[in-house]
Order: sequence, then C-alpha cells, then structure tokens
Amino acid sequence: MSLDLGKPGDFHVHLRDGAMKELVTPSLREGGVSVCFVMPNLVPPLTNPQRVLEYQKSLQKLSPRTKFLMSLYLCNEITPEVIVAAKKAGISGVKCYPAGVTTNSDHGVSSYEPFYPTFAEMERQDIVLNIHGECPSGEDIHVLNAEEKFLPTLELLHSKFPKLRIVLEHCTSKAAIKAVKRCGPNVVATITAHHLYLTVDSWGGNAHNFCKPVAKFPEDREALIEAATSGSPKFFFGSDSAPHPVESKTKGKGAAAGVFTQQHAISYVAQVFDNAGKLDKLRGFVTDFGKDFYRINDADLDSATVTLVEKPFKVADELSKDGLTVIPFQAGETLKWAVEWSN
Amino acid sequence: MSLDLGKPGDFHVHLRDGAMKELVTPSLREGGVSVCFVMPNLVPPLTNPQRVLEYQKSLQKLSPRTKFLMSLYLCNEITPEVIVAAKKAGISGVKCYPAGVTTNSDHGVSSYEPFYPTFAEMERQDIVLNIHGECPSGEDIHVLNAEEKFLPTLELLHSKFPKLRIVLEHCTSKAAIKAVKRCGPNVVATITAHHLYLTVDSWGGNAHNFCKPVAKFPEDREALIEAATSGSPKFFFGSDSAPHPVESKTKGKGAAAGVFTQQHAISYVAQVFDNAGKLDKLRGFVTDFGKDFYRINDADLDSATVTLVEKPFKVADELSKDGLTVIPFQAGETLKWAVEWSN
Repeated sequence: MSLDLGKPGDFHVHLRDGAMKELVTPSLREGGVSVCFVMPNLVPPLTNPQRVLEYQKSLQKLSPRTKFLMSLYLCNEITPEVIVAAKKAGISGVKCYPAGVTTNSDHGVSSYEPFYPTFAEMERQDIVLNIHGECPSGEDIHVLNAEEKFLPTLELLHSKFPKLRIVLEHCTSKAAIKAVKRCGPNVVATITAHHLYLTVDSWGGNAHNFCKPVAKFPEDREALIEAATSGSPKFFFGSDSAPHPVESKTKGKGAAAGVFTQQHAISYVAQVFDNAGKLDKLRGFVTDFGKDFYRINDADLDSATVTLVEKPFKVADELSKDGLTVIPFQAGETLKWAVEWSN
Repeated sequence: MSLDLGKPGDFHVHLRDGAMKELVTPSLREGGVSVCFVMPNLVPPLTNPQRVLEYQKSLQKLSPRTKFLMSLYLCNEITPEVIVAAKKAGISGVKCYPAGVTTNSDHGVSSYEPFYPTFAEMERQDIVLNIHGECPSGEDIHVLNAEEKFLPTLELLHSKFPKLRIVLEHCTSKAAIKAVKRCGPNVVATITAHHLYLTVDSWGGNAHNFCKPVAKFPEDREALIEAATSGSPKFFFGSDSAPHPVESKTKGKGAAAGVFTQQHAISYVAQVFDNAGKLDKLRGFVTDFGKDFYRINDADLDSATVTLVEKPFKVADELSKDGLTVIPFQAGETLKWAVEWSN
C-alpha cells in the first residue's frame, strides 16, 4: 500500500546552529518534509530580521530543496518597527517563549501587555504569533498543568487581537485542544509526533522522551490523537524536533528537554494514524492544513513530492558525526511506514 | 543550637547486595540511623527466612552497631507456614510489591486474595505487612495516580484484617495521607526525605530525583510535610534510600528509579522540619513513632545516641569505591544540620 502525501510540512522545527545544524538540517528531507517553520531560539536568540535571513541562508545551503519559513524571537527589541521590517524580509512569524520554561528561553516574556503594540502591528502586517503556551512553574503551577494555566492568556490575546493569527505550539493537553476549538479560525495549534506516543509514564525513566511541554496523561494523548486525525484544519503537524547532544540528555541533573524526531518525522506520525485507522486523514494533518494557514503555495516549493510506502524499517540507535551524537525518538524500534521522494 | 534525637530509625532502607551493599551499608551510621527496616528486593528476592538471616548477618558485619529489622518478599512461596518460621527467626515484616511497579518487583503481587491465608497468619503472628502502594500503569492508571488508585485496596485489606499492622510505604500523596488517617491505628505510613523536597517538576530533567512512587504535585508535598511534622504517630521516617550505580541512573532509556539519601538521612529531614519551624517534632518522626510501631526498645539498641547540631556542610558529589559510584540526593548542596554520635 502507498499514499501520496504531496509536499508535507513540519511547522515547528529546531535546527540549532554550528555542528548540530549541519548534523540535523539534512534530516528534514530524510523525514519527508518539504517546507518547515524554523524556531528562533538560538544562543543568542534571533532578534533581528538581518540575522534571521543570514540563518535562513545557512539552512538553505544544508538542505537546498527545503523551504524554510522563518521567525523572530519575541523580546523587548521586537518593536512595531521591527515587525514592519520583518514583513519586508519575508519573515513568517514571531515566537513567544514565556521566560524560563524551556531550552534557551531565558530571554523570553514575563508579561504580555508591553507587547500589545507589537501584536497590533503583527495583526496589521499579518505576521503569525507562535506561542509556547506554558506558565512558568510556581506555587500552584507545575509541569503537568503549566499549559492549561496558560490557556486564559491565549484566549485573552485572541480576544484583544482577533485578526492576529496565533499558533499554540506543540499543544499537549485535552484542555488545550478544547480551548483552540473554542477560539475563532485564526487560532490553531501544532501537534508533535512524540506527544501522540508519550504519557507522563514515558519520561521519568527515559531522558530521550523528556521534553517541554512534558507529555501528559493518557486521556490527553487520546485527545491529541483525536484532534490530529479529525480532519480539522485547526490542528496540523509541528514536530518540535529538538536535538541535543546525547551528553546533555543523560547528564542527570539539568538534563536538556527535547525529543529528536526530524529524521523520521512523517513516519512517526503515519504510524499513529495507521493505528487509529485514519491514514486517510494524514495528508490534511502533515501537508495541507499547515500550508493553508501559512499561505504557502505548492508552486513555491520544490517540485518533488512524497509517497508514504509500507516498508518497515528500524530507527537507528543514533545520528552521529564528528563526535556529535543525537539519539532519535524510539531508537531501535521498528516503524511501518517509510517516505519516498518522487525524484 | 543542638537537639537530642536519641536513637533514630530509618524504617525503609535498600542496602542491596555485593559491592553496593559494602558501599552503602556503612552510610547508615553516617546518616544518623541506629535502627533500620531492610527491604527484601534483592536479585533474587529474599523469599525464605534462612536467606534473610544470612543477609542480616552480612549487614551486621558491615555496620556492627546498627540494628537491622528484616523482611521477606511476598510471593507464592510465603505460605502461612513460612510466616510461623519467620516469626521464630525474628523477622519483622513482609513486603508486598505489586508486580512491575518498581526496582526488582518482577516477582511481585498481581492479586491479593490468594494471600489472605498468609495475611491471616501474619495477623496471628503479629508480623507487619509493608506495602508498596501503587497500581501498575494501565489504561486509566499512570505514575501520578498509581498510589491514589491503590488506596481502596489498602482500606479493603485493613477492613479484612483489622489487627494486621500495615505500613503504607513511602506515601507520596495528599490522598494517601487522608486514607491512612481514616484507617485505625494499625495502619501507618512511612514518608521519605526526598518526597519532602521534590515535586513532579523535579525528576524529568534530573535522573537522580527519579524514583517510584514519583514525586507528585506541590499540594501533595505540602500534605506530606504537614503529616510528617504533625506529631501524629501514624507517620514516621522511612528513607526508601535506593542506591543505583550512576550508569544505571543516567543511561537514558530504562533508567533506574531511586534516590540515594542514606548518607545524610536525618540531615535532609531536619532541614525540612527546620524550614517548617517544626524542629520540636523531629524526634517523634525520626526516632519515637517508628520504634513504637515496631516495638523496639531502646535497651535493645547500641548505646550511642545522636545529637543534631547546626553545622552546615556540603553534600559530596558522589559516594564511590572501586569504580562503583552512587550520586547522593542534593549532591553539591549545603545542608544546615549535621548529626553527631555520642561516642
């Protein structure tokens, strides 16, 4: 059996910089991705359009046939003037990280109101707001309810800026799915591959499954699968593939959060859709809905297309080059569906 | 400032076997512990009284001034006849592990009813039932509610065997505290040091804080602190100190569950009581209540006593010997209270 997926997209990727960038960027294509939305949390973060364009150029060199949608990192420097410049530079979104919630979020946002003029300009310029939707842990906030506690902020921003297109990135909870559904069509959510697999049981004893937002309860995973396979254009694929050197993952105290899925992005998702008997909904989730939201025409992408083929393969134990090693999600496990490019 | 703690007890310890036993058993005394209750989950588990006595002898050699209360591992071999023999051998308890919930629990219990004759004999012989109170993860059970889901079983066993003395070991949730309070005086619970510190935020990014039962929500930790410092004899100290070689903790997939606190057992607890302004309740929790429950007379213990002294010290980065390394809880952190033996 095989399935034409057209030109799939991954609307949330971390491609890093330096040696890691060189290691993982080529795996976009290996994973079956034609277009991707690139997160700006480098060290230091991408806070001006010029640096974003330079970064985009460096990625293009490493994966020439991939289309890279780019983003800025929301911080004090992102004024309405910068938004105007970003639009001219062809930048697609601005990523908002609450301070301290995940990898390289130290420069993130503590309060949203100071950014209202920026959001208003984004609304005018039709630039997307990409939100990491978690509140930092505190007295009654912890990693399991951090996303749910953020949802009132999402709904507030939507009501203040109803025309602002907002992506609740890597949503992980039943509550988030409900909130996104409650909002108008300008609010959508990405769903990762790994959150379709993992629960709170998965990450305590396996550092490679530890990510932020953390995987939640079985009923949350069910809600994610239900949303992803529902055929609703409000939910589309963003892998949040987040490579870290194996040493950073397994160092014990202060281990890095992030799951690396880029290499087999589409295959991981296909497996879940297959298990759910919903392979007919796969193309909407990984190809159509995200491109529609970001207003990408297939004509602007490389001509090659992807076919999903039933051809079981084993996920390699590691992706490695010159002493830099990343452990893929489900290393050593067998996946049923492979991707093949048309040329 | 200083505080006379008499002869403290740690009523839940894992001392392992072989090189690990030799490494960690001496740290009982270093941690300020005069008497301890030893868990039977060796490989293979301790399922007959003879082996328990041999194991006890080997521990006694490594820490001659410590009193070791011993236990059997509940499995099909633990018949009423074995309970009679255990009583004669001076064994204090029988530990019940639900199958598959933690380290070396593969031989554990799937169903309780087949053990009712054994429990009846334990009731007659006045041998304690020590329960790891978690249900195995399944469709609607996960590591965060596994303890709460077990509580009806605890209450059922208590109602069937009201004279059986039961310890709900290492309780971690507000729900468990409530359930233990609801039961009669024959049902008590141990509380670890690390669960007075940790929450669900603590163990994803730090393998050394990962244990079973996992640390739960902030309100659960508050309930544990409240119970431990309440002066109620239903709650006493059992560290569940569970050493693993550092490689087993940081290997990523399949990492071992357990926190090693033996070296500074009393100091960790004292810090929490001090923070809560409840140092006056410390002696009850670490010394009196556990010994009363197990009917241990101070006259049967070594004559040395422990004084808690305000003498800040840094927790070592590791405990190591001949290539075997264990990482202590809060390695590198400063603790305010040290223990001093009277001789």
